[in-house]
Amino acid sequence: MSTVYFDLSISLDGYIAGPNVTLSNPLGDDGERLHDWMFVGRSAEQARTFEEDVFAPCGAMLMGRTMLDVGIEPWGEEPTFHMPVFILTHRPHEPVVKLGGTTYYFVTTGLADALEQARAAAGDKDIVIAGGANLVRQCLAAGMVEEFRLHLVPVVLGGGVRLFDGVAPFTAEPAASCVLDSHGVTHLHYRMRDRARPA
Amino acid sequence: MSTVYFDLSISLDGYIAGPNVTLSNPLGDDGERLHDWMFVGRSAEQARTFEEDVFAPCGAMLMGRTMLDVGIEPWGEEPTFHMPVFILTHRPHEPVVKLGGTTYYFVTTGLADALEQARAAAGDKDIVIAGGANLVRQCLAAGMVEEFRLHLVPVVLGGGVRLFDGVAPFTAEPAASCVLDSHGVTHLHYRMRDRARPA
Repeated sequence: MSTVYFDLSISLDGYIAGPNVTLSNPLGDDGERLHDWMFVGRSAEQARTFEEDVFAPCGAMLMGRTMLDVGIEPWGEEPTFHMPVFILTHRPHEPVVKLGGTTYYFVTTGLADALEQARAAAGDKDIVIAGGANLVRQCLAAGMVEEFRLHLVPVVLGGGVRLFDGVAPFTAEPAASCVLDSHGVTHLHYRMRDRARPA
Repeated sequence: MSTVYFDLSISLDGYIAGPNVTLSNPLGDDGERLHDWMFVGRSAEQARTFEEDVFAPCGAMLMGRTMLDVGIEPWGEEPTFHMPVFILTHRPHEPVVKLGGTTYYFVTTGLADALEQARAAAGDKDIVIAGGANLVRQCLAAGMVEEFRLHLVPVVLGGGVRLFDGVAPFTAEPAASCVLDSHGVTHLHYRMRDRARPA
């Protein structure tokens, strides 16, 4: 069965990117510290394989336009996604086809339609909400999120992009036990409860 | 050896109390959900014993004046602390002696002095920073915190008192593995690293 989830690295103070995010500073100041656990101690090839394994259960991705704008260059000509990526945007654009099965599709008809297209593409595979924070918040507000995974990094950034800012109250329940890795990162996996709970 | 730490329940969005904290609403709206894990499934006596066990390694407590103001009534005539509690305040007050070894001492000479008094009282036992958030932030800014424990409750409150607001960046490292309990709460235990790191 297909599950819709998001999967993000987050600081102890709730940031998924540092302050001053720009095209040339896509993770914000010090924001790369949130992702070090995926790269430190791994060769570039191992890190690539690690990412591909993370995405393997997924058949489609939802992504915000800003995240694509800052990511499309670093992700390169053969992104690790290997699946269709549906970009929620107000700016129409022809699909951008990359190597290895990744195509960026630009959806201007709203979130529900983007999810529908993702479902059709994913079949029985999962749908991952890549980010950014705005898209995750929209998906939470629309009751679309079924599960989420947080990689809790033991740093306080002191500023940046807060994942849960402006999100209506909700309750979750662990879908799996926590795992502490050798980088000091705690991996948390939750399932949404009372998804229809009003704010 | 004596360790200085704080130990707080926190929501997924970083709040240690809900919105609208007042004397008659000391945990803020919905804030009691952050502490349910200590009480649900336990009798009042079991909950009391649980709290006493948590405090057993501690020989002294630091507390903010507002926390005392909202807590002194509910904690009652024989608080579970069983140790001297040093209240950081601008308002002088005679010590308030409770049963069972808890005395509230009012320190108007600043944080460093409060810690010194707590150290003298604690001997080899630990010193726990009870809260509230303001006091924890002051202790972090002063480089006084050696360890901290967070009980990560799987709720998003959407507002309230954020623990790490205005705290300068820092890095921690796990002092123990994470533990997921039957209430869905993940218990995290960190040691401060680079305590002298400038903001």
